[in-house]
Amino acid sequence: MTALDTVNNQYKPTPTLETLLDKTAEDMGRINELILAEAHSSVDMIPKLAKHLIDSGGKRIRPMLTCATSRLCGYEGLDHIPLATSIEFLHTATLLHDDVVDESDMRRGKQAARILWGNQASVLVGDYLLGQSFKIMVSVGSLEALKILSNASAIIAEGEVMQLAATNNPTISEAEYMAVINSKTAALFVAAAELGAVVNNRPDDERQALKDFGENLGIVFQLVDDALDYHGEASKLGKDVGDDFRDGKITLPVILAYQQGTKEEQDFWKRTLGEGQIEDQDLDTAIKLTEKYKTIEETMNRARNYGEKAKIALQKFPNNAWSEALQDAIEFCIERGN
Amino acid sequence: MTALDTVNNQYKPTPTLETLLDKTAEDMGRINELILAEAHSSVDMIPKLAKHLIDSGGKRIRPMLTCATSRLCGYEGLDHIPLATSIEFLHTATLLHDDVVDESDMRRGKQAARILWGNQASVLVGDYLLGQSFKIMVSVGSLEALKILSNASAIIAEGEVMQLAATNNPTISEAEYMAVINSKTAALFVAAAELGAVVNNRPDDERQALKDFGENLGIVFQLVDDALDYHGEASKLGKDVGDDFRDGKITLPVILAYQQGTKEEQDFWKRTLGEGQIEDQDLDTAIKLTEKYKTIEETMNRARNYGEKAKIALQKFPNNAWSEALQDAIEFCIERGN
Repeated sequence: MTALDTVNNQYKPTPTLETLLDKTAEDMGRINELILAEAHSSVDMIPKLAKHLIDSGGKRIRPMLTCATSRLCGYEGLDHIPLATSIEFLHTATLLHDDVVDESDMRRGKQAARILWGNQASVLVGDYLLGQSFKIMVSVGSLEALKILSNASAIIAEGEVMQLAATNNPTISEAEYMAVINSKTAALFVAAAELGAVVNNRPDDERQALKDFGENLGIVFQLVDDALDYHGEASKLGKDVGDDFRDGKITLPVILAYQQGTKEEQDFWKRTLGEGQIEDQDLDTAIKLTEKYKTIEETMNRARNYGEKAKIALQKFPNNAWSEALQDAIEFCIERGN
Repeated sequence: MTALDTVNNQYKPTPTLETLLDKTAEDMGRINELILAEAHSSVDMIPKLAKHLIDSGGKRIRPMLTCATSRLCGYEGLDHIPLATSIEFLHTATLLHDDVVDESDMRRGKQAARILWGNQASVLVGDYLLGQSFKIMVSVGSLEALKILSNASAIIAEGEVMQLAATNNPTISEAEYMAVINSKTAALFVAAAELGAVVNNRPDDERQALKDFGENLGIVFQLVDDALDYHGEASKLGKDVGDDFRDGKITLPVILAYQQGTKEEQDFWKRTLGEGQIEDQDLDTAIKLTEKYKTIEETMNRARNYGEKAKIALQKFPNNAWSEALQDAIEFCIERGN
């Protein structure tokens, strides 16, 4: 830590999720109970596999967002509990299928379910969790909420297919990439946040503000993840540095480095990410190229801009303890990447 | 054809789906239009892959059931059209994921989507179709219908996981096997038929009768499929004879042969289906063992019993052209196996 860092830290403490975690603790306790209850099945393999993921300590930021936005809008009921649970199930199902598609070995610092139980079980238990997710949301009886969630599930899958089509293609544009992450990542953040307005029957402008907040926070989340894959610590990531590179996944740090690269550098990206011919030293070279063109910094700059937009969206709401906790959460998501 | 067959045919014409096809033609035309519209996506790969399956000439018996039961109960509206479409999307998504899990090469007489576009795309486009399925059913705005369909989707996945857990285990009991096909196949027939009562707001006893009809017909459908896999023509199946055997799938003809088999025969089933050590002549041996113990006939006898139960369930309703068409459909499903 430099002297300057120390001075900065005196004025601006490292943001944490603590306030949001504290304030949502009671709700999240209810959600965790419901998650465990609804992951149950008389078919042995289902709860085993589901609990492997559920117990693996994800931050559950999406259901937490539903709790926080519901309370931000003054909600005092409990309908947001099953809705938030439904969001987490949808997310967990996506993770199971993602790992199969990406052939990932690790998830949240543990072996991926597909390594332990096989790809087949991961596909099918993912389908079961999707089904449970819909059952839970139907049980709330809100057609508005159902519209949001069913729409999100189709958009997320669309984003995953877009990403699959762009796999191994380092020449895609930044705009195309942003369309992918808008669908595959931000859409569920949008839904999670929008539900807060829906359970409160809030007017359209507040609903839109929460959607904007969710969308921008979702993009922050993904861009920071992209950046961490090339320079983070495995402990922060819950996966290995270089996983995206090894999976041939095209992310913003690569797209920006490719665009500015020499012919030789572009050939490097085409050979490694394009054709999957990856040798021992290639991850080091890839990291050096992101350093040469400062594309991690560029990715983080963009993340910060989206973070600002997310904060602006929150200004629609009274400046109380809930909106402060959500602002801290935005800062926390960005800070992970530094 | 023997002389006796000719005599029999004079009294009892071979049952066909024609009456049901004729009577539902207008509704099915609407459903086909909606299927094509809802399989659309700006992401190129989605409609291509979806249409490969959609255009491959499945009989669409599930949505047809929803149409027929709706009309049987006197419905004159159009809400059953999107609900039936939703059923077909759910089914199509299941097929895509099934083929990945079973590593099947063929589907409905064409190369499986996973062979043409890969397992990854099949998983993700399946997810997209599931999402679209939920979107379509939400658009109808019936919470009752949503309960039925979301419940069915979880039960189907549960059945698929049960089947996966029983893969390679020829010692499972007939009861365990019936539990698998009740979930993985009959549940969607139950939902398809029950929706007919729901769109009409019919009383519980009629709803139950349609559920019974759907369940029994679904079991007929699966048992006949099981039988055809060991003695059918590939053209009737849309897949290769022996696919179940090669996939290590345990079906009723095998379970019954295993139970009655000698120690040596049981070892044969354990080596082939249990351990996947399948050699050139093994399919022939398997077929001979099903012949030795008449397990295809036994499977078909059971199918006929379930068919009778399905017919009895229909007696709850007036004996009109719709119930006759449905009775013919039951006969047709059984006759496929002969």
